[in-house]
Amino acid sequence: SSRILLNIEDYHQVAKEKLSKMAYDYYRSGADDEITLQENVDAYRRIKLRPRVFVDVSHHSTNTECCSVTLLNGQTTCSIPLLIAPTAMHRMADDEGECSTARAAVRANTVMILSSLSTTRIEDVAQAHQQALKQYPTSTSQLWFQLYILKDRAFTKRLVERAENAGFRALVVTVDACRFGNREIDHRNGFRLPENMQLENLYDAGLKQAQNEHVSALNDFIANNLDASLTWSDIKWLRQISRLPIIVKGIMTGEDAQLAVQAGVDGIVVSNHGARQVDTTFSTIEVLPEIVTAIRTISNKKKIDIYIDGGIRRGTDILKALALGADAVLVGRPILWGLAANGSQGVFDVLEVFKRELKLAMMLCGCVSLPSRNMPTSSLVTMPKSKL
Amino acid sequence: SSRILLNIEDYHQVAKEKLSKMAYDYYRSGADDEITLQENVDAYRRIKLRPRVFVDVSHHSTNTECCSVTLLNGQTTCSIPLLIAPTAMHRMADDEGECSTARAAVRANTVMILSSLSTTRIEDVAQAHQQALKQYPTSTSQLWFQLYILKDRAFTKRLVERAENAGFRALVVTVDACRFGNREIDHRNGFRLPENMQLENLYDAGLKQAQNEHVSALNDFIANNLDASLTWSDIKWLRQISRLPIIVKGIMTGEDAQLAVQAGVDGIVVSNHGARQVDTTFSTIEVLPEIVTAIRTISNKKKIDIYIDGGIRRGTDILKALALGADAVLVGRPILWGLAANGSQGVFDVLEVFKRELKLAMMLCGCVSLPSRNMPTSSLVTMPKSKL
Amino acid sequence: SSRILLNIEDYHQVAKEKLSKMAYDYYRSGADDEITLQENVDAYRRIKLRPRVFVDVSHHSTNTECCSVTLLNGQTTCSIPLLIAPTAMHRMADDEGECSTARAAVRANTVMILSSLSTTRIEDVAQAHQQALKQYPTSTSQLWFQLYILKDRAFTKRLVERAENAGFRALVVTVDACRFGNREIDHRNGFRLPENMQLENLYDAGLKQAQNEHVSALNDFIANNLDASLTWSDIKWLRQISRLPIIVKGIMTGEDAQLAVQAGVDGIVVSNHGARQVDTTFSTIEVLPEIVTAIRTISNKKKIDIYIDGGIRRGTDILKALALGADAVLVGRPILWGLAANGSQGVFDVLEVFKRELKLAMMLCGCVSLPSRNMPTSSLVTMPKSKL
Amino acid sequence: SSRILLNIEDYHQVAKEKLSKMAYDYYRSGADDEITLQENVDAYRRIKLRPRVFVDVSHHSTNTECCSVTLLNGQTTCSIPLLIAPTAMHRMADDEGECSTARAAVRANTVMILSSLSTTRIEDVAQAHQQALKQYPTSTSQLWFQLYILKDRAFTKRLVERAENAGFRALVVTVDACRFGNREIDHRNGFRLPENMQLENLYDAGLKQAQNEHVSALNDFIANNLDASLTWSDIKWLRQISRLPIIVKGIMTGEDAQLAVQAGVDGIVVSNHGARQVDTTFSTIEVLPEIVTAIRTISNKKKIDIYIDGGIRRGTDILKALALGADAVLVGRPILWGLAANGSQGVFDVLEVFKRELKLAMMLCGCVSLPSRNMPTSSLVTMPKSKL
Ligand SMILES: Cc1cc2nc3c(=O)[nH]c(=O)nc-3n(C[C@H](O)[C@H](O)[C@H](O)COP(=O)(O)O)c2cc1C
Ligand SMILES: Cc1cc2nc3c(=O)[nH]c(=O)nc-3n(C[C@H](O)[C@H](O)[C@H](O)COP(=O)(O)O)c2cc1C
Ligand SMILES: Cc1cc2nc3c(=O)[nH]c(=O)nc-3n(C[C@H](O)[C@H](O)[C@H](O)COP(=O)(O)O)c2cc1C
Ligand SMILES: Cc1cc2nc3c(=O)[nH]c(=O)nc-3n(C[C@H](O)[C@H](O)[C@H](O)COP(=O)(O)O)c2cc1C
Repeated sequence: SSRILLNIEDYHQVAKEKLSKMAYDYYRSGADDEITLQENVDAYRRIKLRPRVFVDVSHHSTNTECCSVTLLNGQTTCSIPLLIAPTAMHRMADDEGECSTARAAVRANTVMILSSLSTTRIEDVAQAHQQALKQYPTSTSQLWFQLYILKDRAFTKRLVERAENAGFRALVVTVDACRFGNREIDHRNGFRLPENMQLENLYDAGLKQAQNEHVSALNDFIANNLDASLTWSDIKWLRQISRLPIIVKGIMTGEDAQLAVQAGVDGIVVSNHGARQVDTTFSTIEVLPEIVTAIRTISNKKKIDIYIDGGIRRGTDILKALALGADAVLVGRPILWGLAANGSQGVFDVLEVFKRELKLAMMLCGCVSLPSRNMPTSSLVTMPKSKL
Repeated sequence: SSRILLNIEDYHQVAKEKLSKMAYDYYRSGADDEITLQENVDAYRRIKLRPRVFVDVSHHSTNTECCSVTLLNGQTTCSIPLLIAPTAMHRMADDEGECSTARAAVRANTVMILSSLSTTRIEDVAQAHQQALKQYPTSTSQLWFQLYILKDRAFTKRLVERAENAGFRALVVTVDACRFGNREIDHRNGFRLPENMQLENLYDAGLKQAQNEHVSALNDFIANNLDASLTWSDIKWLRQISRLPIIVKGIMTGEDAQLAVQAGVDGIVVSNHGARQVDTTFSTIEVLPEIVTAIRTISNKKKIDIYIDGGIRRGTDILKALALGADAVLVGRPILWGLAANGSQGVFDVLEVFKRELKLAMMLCGCVSLPSRNMPTSSLVTMPKSKL
Repeated sequence: SSRILLNIEDYHQVAKEKLSKMAYDYYRSGADDEITLQENVDAYRRIKLRPRVFVDVSHHSTNTECCSVTLLNGQTTCSIPLLIAPTAMHRMADDEGECSTARAAVRANTVMILSSLSTTRIEDVAQAHQQALKQYPTSTSQLWFQLYILKDRAFTKRLVERAENAGFRALVVTVDACRFGNREIDHRNGFRLPENMQLENLYDAGLKQAQNEHVSALNDFIANNLDASLTWSDIKWLRQISRLPIIVKGIMTGEDAQLAVQAGVDGIVVSNHGARQVDTTFSTIEVLPEIVTAIRTISNKKKIDIYIDGGIRRGTDILKALALGADAVLVGRPILWGLAANGSQGVFDVLEVFKRELKLAMMLCGCVSLPSRNMPTSSLVTMPKSKL
Repeated sequence: SSRILLNIEDYHQVAKEKLSKMAYDYYRSGADDEITLQENVDAYRRIKLRPRVFVDVSHHSTNTECCSVTLLNGQTTCSIPLLIAPTAMHRMADDEGECSTARAAVRANTVMILSSLSTTRIEDVAQAHQQALKQYPTSTSQLWFQLYILKDRAFTKRLVERAENAGFRALVVTVDACRFGNREIDHRNGFRLPENMQLENLYDAGLKQAQNEHVSALNDFIANNLDASLTWSDIKWLRQISRLPIIVKGIMTGEDAQLAVQAGVDGIVVSNHGARQVDTTFSTIEVLPEIVTAIRTISNKKKIDIYIDGGIRRGTDILKALALGADAVLVGRPILWGLAANGSQGVFDVLEVFKRELKLAMMLCGCVSLPSRNMPTSSLVTMPKSKL
C-alpha cells in the first residue's frame, strides 16, 4: 500500500494485515497473560531522558559512522548498535525468509543472528549473505548462529560445525528455553508450519515428522530433544568443539551473569526471550543495571559484551539501553514486521527507522557519541523507581 | 462445548455460561466494592519472578513427584502444593456436588477441605472419597473438614465427631466469619438455594426453615447461629473434643498469627475469605511476608503449617506463594469453575492445569525443587513495594 | 421505584434520576477538573484495613449503643460517629428541604449542621427538629449552625443570635470560602435557584435580588458579602457575641490546625469543602494524620474535637477515619442523595446504611469498640504511601 | 458560536473545530509517542496544593496589580506572571496572525515572545504592538524575540538587529532545537504552509523555495540552516552583536542551568519545547526543583530569571510553578487555541481566564502575594515523589 510507514508500529500494523492470523499470533504473542510482554515495552516509557543542550553535535549530519559500534573485542563492527535477534520461521513472513533478512542485514551493515529454528538451511542463508556482501562490499555485516543445545550432542556438534563452515562468526547459545513457554494463542490456533515449510536445520533430528502436526507436536519435539540438564559446565564442551566466540542469551539475574562470566563466555544477552517463556518476570531493561553491576563486580580482564533485547521500538530505547550499560541491543519482532510488510526491503527500512531515530535522539540529547558503560548513568537517563 | 480450555480463566468463562446468574454471582462475588477481590489477583501480577538458567531440571520430565509436598508434620502428602479450599454449596454447580469434587481430589491426589455449608452430608462425601480411593489406590488424598463454631456447642461437637468418624483428617476452623460480609449482588438477586438443595450439615441446627427464604434469611441464620464471642481460648475446647490437627483459616495479621501459634494450632491459612468479608483489606499475598516473619519470631519447636488462599490463578502464583513462605496454597473459585464446566472431570482438569503450569514455571525458573520457607526469598521473587 | 437500595451509590443513582440536571449537577460537582473530588473517594480505597479475628464482638448484636460517640466534651451524643454536613439548598431535593433532613437527624439520633445557605429559615428548621424530638423522645439529636462570617458584622451577629435563640447548640464557622470555587458545570447550566425558593437566612443581606439571576449573580453576591479579610483573631469576636462552642470547618494543614487551637476553638473539621473550592489539593483523609499530629504536638488541656468530611461513602471509610484520629465524620452528598431519593425517610435510610456498614466492619475487623485517637494507628489501618 | 468558554480546554475544543486538520495537528502534536506531551499536563495534577485559611486576602478584590511581576531586573513588568511563549505560524490560526496576538498581549499587559518562524515580519508585529500601546497607554507590554541561531551568522546578526531596531526588548535563544523533533502526524498530513503564507523572517535565508513543499522540505531546511555546532561560548558572540538581555530557552537539567549562568545569560526557560523535541523526557515541572537548586548552588550576584513552560492549563498550575521557584510561566498552545477561536479577542480572553483562575487560586489558598523563590516550597505545594 502507499501508506506512509514512519515508525515500527506502522510496520507492525501492515504486518498484521498481511500475515495469516496463525503466523501473526505466533510472532506477536508471549507467555501466559502477556504481562511481561507489555512490560518490556512499557518499562522503556518510564525511563526518562535528560537532554543536554548547546553541545556541538554537528558531526552527526555528515558522519555516517557516528552510531557504529565495535563488538566482540574488535571482531565485529556494526553501523548501528542494533543486531537482528534470532527469531524462528521467517518464511511465514516472506517467501525467501531468512535469506531476505540476511540481505537486509548486509545492506544495513549489521549482524543477523540466525535462529536454530529457521525455515531455511544454514548454508543457504550463508550463501545469500555472501552474495549480498558482493553487492555491498563495504558492509561489515556478519552472521551469527543461535544454538539450542540438544540432548543429541553429536547432532548439536554437527550443527555448530555446519555454521562455522558456512562462515558464521559467533555462537549465541539460548539458555532460557529448556522448554517452550506457555503461549496459549498458538494452542487455540492449532499452530503448525505451512505445508511447504519445515525447520530445515533440525530436519535430521527427527522434527520432520512432528512439524506438520499440531503445536503440541512441536512442543513435544522440543521437550524431547532440548537438553534440560544443561549447566554452566556445558559451555566447556562447546569451547572444545568450536573456536567461535560464545554468547549466552537469556540472562535475567546478576547471579547468572556472574556464572556466565566465570564460565568464560564472550558475551551475554539480557533477555526474557521476548516474554515468551516466563510471564510476570521483569522487563529486561529493569534488570540491566543489576547485571551490569554484577559483571563489573567480578573484575575480569577479558571484556564481556552485554547485549539486551525485548521491547525496543524507538531510537530513544536504544539510547537508554546503552546509557544503562548495554553494548548493543537486539530486536526481534520489529524485524518480522518489516519482513512481512515488504520482504528484505522492509527489514532494511525498519533498520533505517531505528538508525534515523537513534541519530535524532542523540542530537537532541546532546550526545557527541554513543553512551557507553563507563559514562555515569544518571547523566543521560533516570531509571524509574521500581513500579512494583 | 469443544472449546479448548487451557487455563483457569477459560474454565471461568465456561462456568459463567453454564451456571444460573444467581449461582454464578454467588460464587464470583466479594464484599462491598470488590476492591480486595481484584487486588487478590492483581497483587500476584505485581510480584516478579527472577528466572535462573542453565540449572539441571531434567528430572522434572520424568519425576511425577517433583511437585509433591508433605504437610501436617508428615501426616499428609499431596502431589501438588495446592489444596481445595472449602467453598459452600457445590450442588449448585454439579448434580453430585461435593462428591464430584472429592473424587477429583482423589484422582489428582490432593486434599479437599469440605465446607460446613456443603449441600451434601459429611458422610456422603466421605463415602464418595473412599470409593474413589479404591479406584486410585496409590492416591494419598485426604478429606479435611472446615468448621464454623456455632453458639450451640453441643451441635458443633456433633459435627466434629461426625467428621472425625467419617474419616476426615484435619479440622479447618474458619475464624474470619463471625458474620457474613456484605455481598450486594446476592441481595439484588434475592439469592436462595434451589428448591432441591439444602445445607445438609446444618439441617438440625435449624437452617432448614431459613434456606428457602431470601438471602437475608440465610444471613440472619448465620448471625443467629455463629458464635461471635469466640476467642483464642476456644481452641482449647476444640482440642478437648477432637484429636484431629487444627488449622485456623482467616489470618491476616502478624499479631493474630502469633496468637494462633500460642493457642497451639497445627497450621494457619492466610486468607481474607476470597475477599468476601472485609473489603479494602490487603490481598493475602501482600501480608504473607509479615506473617511468616511473625511466626519465625516466636520460636516454637512444633512446625506450624502456613497455607494461603485468594486469587491464585496461575502456576506462577503458586511458585510465588511458596517462595514467600507458604507451605501450600488453597484455591476456591477455580475449583467451582471446573465443577460447573464439567463436573468431577472439570475439577480434575483444573487441578491438572495448575500442576502443568507449576511444573513449567519451575523448569523455566530453574527450580530444582519447590521453593521452601528456608530459601532466601529474594532469589526467586521480588515483592513489590506496597502500591499504596 | 421498587429497586433495592443497598448502599450510598444506589441512593446516588436514584437521586440522579429524580433531580433536575441543574440541581443534580450543583450537588455533585467540584472545582475545576474535579481531580480532588475523585481523590476524596479514591484515597479511602487505598487505605487498607487489618482485620483481627477471634475477638469477642458478640455485644455488637444486641448493644445498639456500640457505635455511639460523645462530642464537644460531653455536650453532645450521637448514635453513630457521623454527622450531617452543612449543605446548601435542600429544598431543591425535597419540598420540605432542611426540615425533612432535621427530622431524619432526630430519628437517626445524630447532629444536623444547618447551612447558612439553607432554603428554609433557621427558626423553621429548629421547629421541625423540636417536633420530631417529641416523637422520638430518647433521641439526643442536636442542631448546629454553619456560619459564613459576612462583611456586615451586625447582620452576622443577628444570624448567630437567631441560631442560638432557636436552640442550635454549636457554631460551625466555614473558613475555606472567602470566595466560591470554580464549579464550571453551574456556569454551563446557568444555575439559579427555582422560582419559589430563596436563601432564606440571607434574605435581609440583599441576596433576594440576586438569587433569581444567573449563577454569576450568586457568586457576585458571595464575593461582595463574604468577608475575605478574616483572620484567626476574628474567632475572638465570635466568642464575644456567642457562648456556643465554636468549630472551624475547612482545615487542610497542620499549621492551620495549630492556629485554630491557639485561637481557642472547640473543634475543627478537616475538610476541603467536598472538593468544591481548590482543585488538586489533597484528599482530606491524606492530611488527617498530619493534622492529628500537629494538634497533639501543642499540648493543650482542653480537648479539641477533630472532625473530617469528604468522600465518605462506606462504613469502612468511617472506621478508617476514626482509626486515623478523627472523633467523627461528616457526610454531605450522601445526605442529599437520600433526601432526593425519598425525602426524610431517604435521609434516615442513608444514615442506617452507614450504621449497618460501620457495625459490620467493626465486627469483621475485630473492633470491640470504636477506634479512638489513643489507639495505635497501625493496628487497624495501613496508610498508603503518598501516591504522588 | 454562542457556547460558553470557561476554561482553556473550552478554547481548545473550539480551536479544534475551526482549524484545518493540518494546522490543528501541527499545533497540538508532540514528538514520537507523545508521552511527554501528556506528562507535561499530568505532572501538574499530581502536585498538591496546601490551602491556608483565615488569611486576609481581601486586597485581591480591588487591587488589580496583585498578580503583577517584575522581570529582567526591573526592565519588564507584566500584570500576570504568564508570558506568551514563542510559537510558529500564527497566521494559520488567524488572518492577522502574530499581529493579533501582539495586540492581545498589550491589552492583557504581558510580554509576547515572537517566534523566528512567524508568518508575519518582525517589523509588522512591532508596528501592531506599537499601535495597540497607543490605545492602551498604561500597558507595559513588551515584545521579546525568539531566536534560532543559524549557520549563516551574518543572516542571524541581521535578524537580531532587525528585532532590536523594531523595539524588541529581549532575546530568547532556543537551545533545544539543533534539529526538529519527530512529529509524525505532520508527516502523515504532508504538512505545509498554506499558499499565501511564508516564514517571513527566514525568507532571505532561502526558505521561500522550501516552504510550499512537503514537511520534509521544512525539516531539511531547518537541518541545513540551523547550527548544530553551537556551544555555550556562542552566547558571547550574541553579547557582542546585541545589548538586549539574553534568555536561553530549553533547559532541562541542573547541569545546563549552571552552564547557562556561567555563560552570563539573564534568564533561562525550563522547557522541553512543548514536548515536541525529545519524547520520554521529564515533564518540565518535575525538573524545575533540580534546576532551581542548581542555580542557587552557584552563588551569583546577578539575579537570573527562571521561566518555565509546558502543560500549563489552569491558574493553579501557575501558582505551583511559582511556588516551586519559577519567576513566571510561558504558555504556548493555549494562546493558539484562543487565537483560532476568536482572533485577538480570543487570545485576550485566554489570558483573562488564566488571570481569573490564578487570582481565585491565590485567594482560596490564602496567598497574600504571589509565591516567590524565597518562600519555603513545602508550605504551599507538595511535590509528588517521582512516579517513575
Ligand atoms: C516469533 C519469535 C521467535 C523467536 N525465536 C527464537 C529462537 O528461535 N531462538 C531464540 O533464542 N530466541 C527466539 N526468540 C526471541 C528473540 O530472539 C528475542 O529475544 C526477542 O524477540 C526480543 O524481543 P522483541 O521481539 O520485543 O524485540 C523469538 C522471538 C519471537 C518473537
Ligand atoms: C463461593 C464461595 C464459598 C465459600 N465458602 C466458604 C466456606 O463455606 N467456608 C470457608 O471457610 N470459606 C469459604 N470460602 C472461602 C474459601 O475457602 C477461600 O478462602 C477463597 O475462596 C479463596 O479465594 P479464591 O476463590 O480466590 O481462590 C468460600 C469462597 C467462595 C468463593
Ligand atoms: C451541594 C453542596 C453544598 C454545600 N454547601 C455548603 C455550605 O453551605 N456550607 C459549608 O460549610 N459547606 C458546604 N458544603 C460542603 C459540605 O459541608 C462538606 O464539606 C462536603 O460536602 C463533604 O464532602 P462529601 O459531600 O463528599 O461528603 C457543601 C457541599 C455540597 C456538596
Ligand atoms: C505549534 C508550536 C510551535 C512552536 N514554535 C516554537 C518556535 O518557533 N520556537 C520556540 O522556541 N518554541 C516553539 N514552540 C515551543 C513553545 O515556545 C513552548 O515551549 C511550548 O509550546 C510550551 O508548551 P505548551 O504549548 O504546553 O504551553 C512551539 C510550540 C508549539 C506548540
